Amino acid sequence: MPEEVTTDVSEDAVGTVYLVGSGPGDPELLTVKAKRLLETADVVLHDKLPGPEILGEIPEAKREDVGKRAGGEWTPQEYTNKRLVELAAEGKTVVRLKGGDPFVFGRGGEEMEHLAANEIPFEVVPGITSAIAGAGVAGIPVTHRDHVSSVSFVTGHEDPTKDESAIDWDALAATGGTLVVLMGVGKLPLYTQALLDAGMASETPVALVERATWPEMRVATGTLDSIVDVRDDHEIEPPAITVIGEVAATREAVVDFLANRTGEFADTATTVDASEEGDE
Amino acid sequence: MPEEVTTDVSEDAVGTVYLVGSGPGDPELLTVKAKRLLETADVVLHDKLPGPEILGEIPEAKREDVGKRAGGEWTPQEYTNKRLVELAAEGKTVVRLKGGDPFVFGRGGEEMEHLAANEIPFEVVPGITSAIAGAGVAGIPVTHRDHVSSVSFVTGHEDPTKDESAIDWDALAATGGTLVVLMGVGKLPLYTQALLDAGMASETPVALVERATWPEMRVATGTLDSIVDVRDDHEIEPPAITVIGEVAATREAVVDFLANRTGEFADTATTVDASEEGDE
Repeated sequence: MPEEVTTDVSEDAVGTVYLVGSGPGDPELLTVKAKRLLETADVVLHDKLPGPEILGEIPEAKREDVGKRAGGEWTPQEYTNKRLVELAAEGKTVVRLKGGDPFVFGRGGEEMEHLAANEIPFEVVPGITSAIAGAGVAGIPVTHRDHVSSVSFVTGHEDPTKDESAIDWDALAATGGTLVVLMGVGKLPLYTQALLDAGMASETPVALVERATWPEMRVATGTLDSIVDVRDDHEIEPPAITVIGEVAATREAVVDFLANRTGEFADTATTVDASEEGDE
Repeated sequence: MPEEVTTDVSEDAVGTVYLVGSGPGDPELLTVKAKRLLETADVVLHDKLPGPEILGEIPEAKREDVGKRAGGEWTPQEYTNKRLVELAAEGKTVVRLKGGDPFVFGRGGEEMEHLAANEIPFEVVPGITSAIAGAGVAGIPVTHRDHVSSVSFVTGHEDPTKDESAIDWDALAATGGTLVVLMGVGKLPLYTQALLDAGMASETPVALVERATWPEMRVATGTLDSIVDVRDDHEIEPPAITVIGEVAATREAVVDFLANRTGEFADTATTVDASEEGDE
């Protein structure tokens, strides 16, 4: 009876909400704690980002998809906030499952504030962000003693040509560190141009990692100049991360000995490269 | 016989090296994969950073501490690199266990390159970095739709007054995003001053999270102006992360309903605050 063990439910008891990160998609990259909570929770509120393998392991009966409504429209954040409070008030143990880490561009901050404002006890269960893991499993260390002392994560959803853009690409380029853009497949031409305009070298290595840690993961590499063509040639699609900086070139030196999660070597089936990069 | 299941050892077979992140210290924040590999590996090479709880669960017989030598000196990176190759060449399945994620200021990049150069097959198993998790479990989202669109991680080991410092604090301040400094307790006065000199507001919220996710975790909050005094008053010691930015103030709004890993509420025993911040 795993559904009952974590809470002592009574008419008056308020349930706890767990804000849980699912990691990048490989079920083995769930934390031990996330796995336990998914097994013991009464309800799991999720969107599509945790990916099919992880969602497939959660019994239908306790899943609530707040990613889309029946009508096909996106569920407003307000609905999710309200639903979390509602379920907890009924005494339920609730897992709010989010792709990656709940606080890396995941709107977990807003949910947390809403829970506290409604006096609902909650706990944060961090997950592995694809920003770091997606690079890592592709043989790209986001920091490297020889190359960089900082790494910055930005969201690629914003239009960098808008005046009100909150992202300062000039400052990000000036850090000299690795940049990782999440959800940045669509606006790739805009922010690569913004970085070139900011003075970043056109030959700066860039890698796209599509569906990081999923069985169908693909990696495409190029330079700040070529990566838009690489994306188009290989039809790279979301979800993907973009890794920009010297570290992206590390992959080429290690890929022949880099096994993926299924034990296959990464370059046999999953790498696509720009012609100017070549593949060993 | 869990030690034997992952490899088919023969005289000639070369073993695989797994570069594994341990997460921030709570054994339940190990990934399912890391836990499995720790159980099945022949040898686990580690330093102190994974923390006593995780290291305590690994049988003594297969642990090799490469953090310090018997004589008390630090093991050079060259020794660790050599030892990884040596063990794999003997056909051993080797886990190189690193605190947090192997590629976030962990020198995993160098180890990976050394393995590939020596034709040793390896796999990367990402872990949860304390840079994100340490903030999260303290009620601080490193990104927040209302406040920031980027987050940057830097190492606090470098002396920002050195001419050859690779960290551009001016550029980091100019990003307008959250900054998280790892291993930055000692040099806190230097880089907070560098950020003030770069024009960052003196009232910018700052949080120190000591031993994030460990049972003895502590959180201390202040501002860019006051945080050095806060550190001194509360004797905050490494390992700790420093979170700088508007998001650090989120904790105050949520802490009364934020449970920690033991189910206790965060403010009852583990929060220390600057007098000007107050504690609800």
